[in-house]
Amino acid sequence: MFETKFHTYWADADPARIVFFPHFFRFVEQAEEELFRAAGANRQELLEQNHVWIPRVEAFSKFFKPIHAGDAIRVRLNPQLQGEKTIRYEFEIVDDKSTEKLAEGYITVVCVDAANFKATPIPAAIRKILIEKN
Amino acid sequence: MFETKFHTYWADADPARIVFFPHFFRFVEQAEEELFRAAGANRQELLEQNHVWIPRVEAFSKFFKPIHAGDAIRVRLNPQLQGEKTIRYEFEIVDDKSTEKLAEGYITVVCVDAANFKATPIPAAIRKILIEKN
Amino acid sequence: MFETKFHTYWADADPARIVFFPHFFRFVEQAEEELFRAAGANRQELLEQNHVWIPRVEAFSKFFKPIHAGDAIRVRLNPQLQGEKTIRYEFEIVDDKSTEKLAEGYITVVCVDAANFKATPIPAAIRKILIEKN
Amino acid sequence: MFETKFHTYWADADPARIVFFPHFFRFVEQAEEELFRAAGANRQELLEQNHVWIPRVEAFSKFFKPIHAGDAIRVRLNPQLQGEKTIRYEFEIVDDKSTEKLAEGYITVVCVDAANFKATPIPAAIRKILIEKN
Repeated sequence: MFETKFHTYWADADPARIVFFPHFFRFVEQAEEELFRAAGANRQELLEQNHVWIPRVEAFSKFFKPIHAGDAIRVRLNPQLQGEKTIRYEFEIVDDKSTEKLAEGYITVVCVDAANFKATPIPAAIRKILIEKN
Repeated sequence: MFETKFHTYWADADPARIVFFPHFFRFVEQAEEELFRAAGANRQELLEQNHVWIPRVEAFSKFFKPIHAGDAIRVRLNPQLQGEKTIRYEFEIVDDKSTEKLAEGYITVVCVDAANFKATPIPAAIRKILIEKN
Repeated sequence: MFETKFHTYWADADPARIVFFPHFFRFVEQAEEELFRAAGANRQELLEQNHVWIPRVEAFSKFFKPIHAGDAIRVRLNPQLQGEKTIRYEFEIVDDKSTEKLAEGYITVVCVDAANFKATPIPAAIRKILIEKN
Repeated sequence: MFETKFHTYWADADPARIVFFPHFFRFVEQAEEELFRAAGANRQELLEQNHVWIPRVEAFSKFFKPIHAGDAIRVRLNPQLQGEKTIRYEFEIVDDKSTEKLAEGYITVVCVDAANFKATPIPAAIRKILIEKN
């Protein structure tokens, strides 16, 4: 399980004064980038070096409690390799201060060839990082 | 079933040159606003007049095909009333030109009192619009 | 002068319940895309076919009045060619209903080679569209 | 002068694989929030306690070099009080690693009463923080 902390900002909140829900999915993707950074890699460079993209094919989240802009969150990421080509990132988002659970869900990604968007096995360098952080 | 069309723009796309997936959830919320507009109402004003918000409690989407920024999409919205306080917006997003399905899923919202975020019955004026557009 | 209309949405507004100011620059860029569309072209495809990008080198805006999410705006775009490589998009944003001026300013872009980001003359196909719409 | 560091992410970049320019203005606003946090305050709570907003009335930036998503930036903020009601945030954005200047400019904000958006003197608690961080 990988955990990282983000501040939320004014720009993340909507007129109800809480973080606009699609940003939670963005925070999960940022956590994925931090997971690679924590392993000494730059996710985007790693993808480019391996000529792959990892588009999202499924996303799900339950939202338990709203969070006000300015408050900090912790994103917990649990990457699950599913076969050769698929990663399922299970996630939890908790309030940094209260540790109350704000959201949980998963994002499923498939590794594709950057040239033609056809599914292709996850390169070893990426697989290694995901297994270590699991 | 309600249908509306949006253009996607440069700012919606990411370095893989396709629309960044959380924007699909934003497009669904925009479609919800258009559904109210099509009924002669302004969603935000209607919420404020009724002292309610409709926060999202669950969101799910499968993404079938990427879409390039600059291409247009159609969002189809099928609002389902579930009890007194819950709306489930089932959605489909299709390519405007090819009509290929790009994504499908649902967003579940609960009506809450704007003052205390406690669940409260959906006001009649909102319920009426959702039933008409179903 | 080119004019186009956009709706603003819930996601564009911040906790002060008005459109978050950087979105105005996004709307201006969207208007630029609509300008190309109005000329029968897709801006992104046109850039890719000509192996150029048009990064922004300067942006300025005065904001006169706030606008509430859900209200519509009209963006007026006046592209000025400056030498071989530079375009200055002068813009005005007005409230669609009241026609009150909400913002005005300019965005300056320089045409660069997509491979190396070196300044390069604006391709004829792009220049032609900008002159027509001026 | 106040300085803070941000990572940029995949979601901040556009199809040219560089950070989309309006995000630079968002980063400057985030730096403003960090400036208040560094003084032990929460900007949004402080605004609400003082019944004011600080809408932006002018924004300007020159963009010198593009930055790739995934790279980190430092935002330097120099708040200038101008009379009783106006703050001019001069800013510089530099590449965290190379310290090359990526952008510079200013954002001017006016303090307004939250109830009616009329200009009002900057509350003492806010003024104090800005003078300390200047």
